[in-house]
Amino acid sequence: MSTATLNIDLEAIADNWRALASIAQVETAAVVKANGYGLDAGRVGKHLAAAGARQFFVAVAEEGVALRRAIGSGPSISVFSGHMAGDADIISGAHLTPILNSVDQMLRHVEALPGHPFGLQLDTGMNRLGMEPAEWSALRDIALAQNPTLIMSHLACADDPSHPMNEIQRAAFDDMTHGLDVPRSLSATGGILMGANYHYDMVRPGIGLYGGLPFADAKPVVTLDIPVIQVREVAVGETVGYSNAWTAKVPSKVATISAGYADGLIRSMGAKAIVHADGVAVPVIGRVSMDLITVDVTTLAKMPESVQLLGTHQTVEDVAEFAGTIGYEILTNLGARYNRIWQT
Amino acid sequence: MSTATLNIDLEAIADNWRALASIAQVETAAVVKANGYGLDAGRVGKHLAAAGARQFFVAVAEEGVALRRAIGSGPSISVFSGHMAGDADIISGAHLTPILNSVDQMLRHVEALPGHPFGLQLDTGMNRLGMEPAEWSALRDIALAQNPTLIMSHLACADDPSHPMNEIQRAAFDDMTHGLDVPRSLSATGGILMGANYHYDMVRPGIGLYGGLPFADAKPVVTLDIPVIQVREVAVGETVGYSNAWTAKVPSKVATISAGYADGLIRSMGAKAIVHADGVAVPVIGRVSMDLITVDVTTLAKMPESVQLLGTHQTVEDVAEFAGTIGYEILTNLGARYNRIWQT
Repeated sequence: MSTATLNIDLEAIADNWRALASIAQVETAAVVKANGYGLDAGRVGKHLAAAGARQFFVAVAEEGVALRRAIGSGPSISVFSGHMAGDADIISGAHLTPILNSVDQMLRHVEALPGHPFGLQLDTGMNRLGMEPAEWSALRDIALAQNPTLIMSHLACADDPSHPMNEIQRAAFDDMTHGLDVPRSLSATGGILMGANYHYDMVRPGIGLYGGLPFADAKPVVTLDIPVIQVREVAVGETVGYSNAWTAKVPSKVATISAGYADGLIRSMGAKAIVHADGVAVPVIGRVSMDLITVDVTTLAKMPESVQLLGTHQTVEDVAEFAGTIGYEILTNLGARYNRIWQT
Repeated sequence: MSTATLNIDLEAIADNWRALASIAQVETAAVVKANGYGLDAGRVGKHLAAAGARQFFVAVAEEGVALRRAIGSGPSISVFSGHMAGDADIISGAHLTPILNSVDQMLRHVEALPGHPFGLQLDTGMNRLGMEPAEWSALRDIALAQNPTLIMSHLACADDPSHPMNEIQRAAFDDMTHGLDVPRSLSATGGILMGANYHYDMVRPGIGLYGGLPFADAKPVVTLDIPVIQVREVAVGETVGYSNAWTAKVPSKVATISAGYADGLIRSMGAKAIVHADGVAVPVIGRVSMDLITVDVTTLAKMPESVQLLGTHQTVEDVAEFAGTIGYEILTNLGARYNRIWQT
């Protein structure tokens, strides 16, 4: 077999959910958008529902359909992008709760699906999704009369607890929602870690469930083992890979492994990436190509049958650093060719 | 609907294949690895088989199984990673032709599947896949006695026709294969464009089929239209997106669109990317987030219902430049959430 093996520890995800719920001490939802951050929304959702999660969030209605099939009719599934044109049938059919972001979405929803549950997103300064304060002032009484299930907003700078934007957004959320008899939610993983002021009635962890920062105590969730196709000796002065990007300065051994940027291993990580062979760190050399990566295994006593990119020696955050990005991007781009194994 | 729509023009792929075949004037295979460069290997393979392609290449045996199902038993399917441990059943079951890269793979293949077709890859200097010259000298007579269907190598610098490495590899390939009565192949898209010396008996275009460089005359193959979720007015001094990455210097209108890095829109493209609304270029602002991107639409007279990232106004190569990468990476990471439509 020459496809890499991606092990996904569903029980670690459940442990992370329980740990965040125990910090928050309020209703703790689970964000499983982007196909459960790349790890399979259906399997993640089912496992978290069994662990006690009753509220799930996806990005778009289409994701909600697949999730509903996996987790059954009990838990609620909310859709961050709200009620888009043409979505009424799937919102209704899969019993989804759109989080309405604008007056347009509100009108569309009550016209197409009167009485169907919905939540509301307010913009408290991120200027990405949600109603503006002025819009909300105008709509508020009408919207509240329709019994929204949730009023939420989203923090722009929660990865940095010291950022003044956090308090600005919290104060704006308070102003816009004070005294309302509707469950309120402001925080994802970062906000959960900023304390009870940020928790309101519900928190919505995403990245923290999957082992990524800013939840530093998260259990790691994924391991990725990549088979070695062959090992060759490379003489001094010989080059390796596209554009002759690496040149041997000493007699070297080079392993070619079976994964590349088509598997979500971001091409720009090439120059800095490290993999582990039987626990020993060895550097990626040359360019990451579409299906193949070359590794300098000169220092190894025994040639490996596979190497590990993600696992006990390095996390998604370490790999993100190789590529100059964030753990979220590494997770959500884990490729379709991997042989995925879900541990329960 | 809030998922973006990816249009894939299968007939443009067939046109590109015919154009490259007409340049090469030799047997022209089609490389459909990485799920047909992200565009669906089965559909691409079926369409190219109907256009006359008789030889297909995939990266790993698992990809060959799905492709065989799609294209039927006629065409040959070769596997670049060769015969890996444990692959005998699928190589045999799906009638795949492994391209053997080492003595180890040769021994594994003849032991597990004596008489089953195979090809050979020789390393002519890229040091990534294939037998080294010394290995080949030792094995050559034994290998040839088993009737390989193909002897191939791969160029490291074919995107740059002036690179001296091209002639070095061509000379090495000649040396290693001169006088052999076995079909020979050295070139993918780049090599096809370097002239008849590089064509041998078969060429293996990949990226050129899908509209990417270095085949500058390729027909574009994909368009990507992304729905607008909402548009808001942003006052001077207000910020947009994660980490307050963008600040309005003039009263602005900002559209939030429904796609992000979880859809393969590489996060690092944020600062430079452009999309088109009704043909007018408008800049991406702030950070690309997982499922959402913000666009400055202040200059537009009419607010758009969707914007286009890939299409007549900009190609995969333009988008690659926004992200500091190559068209191959943009194509192969096009995400699973898109509503894909294949035009025939």
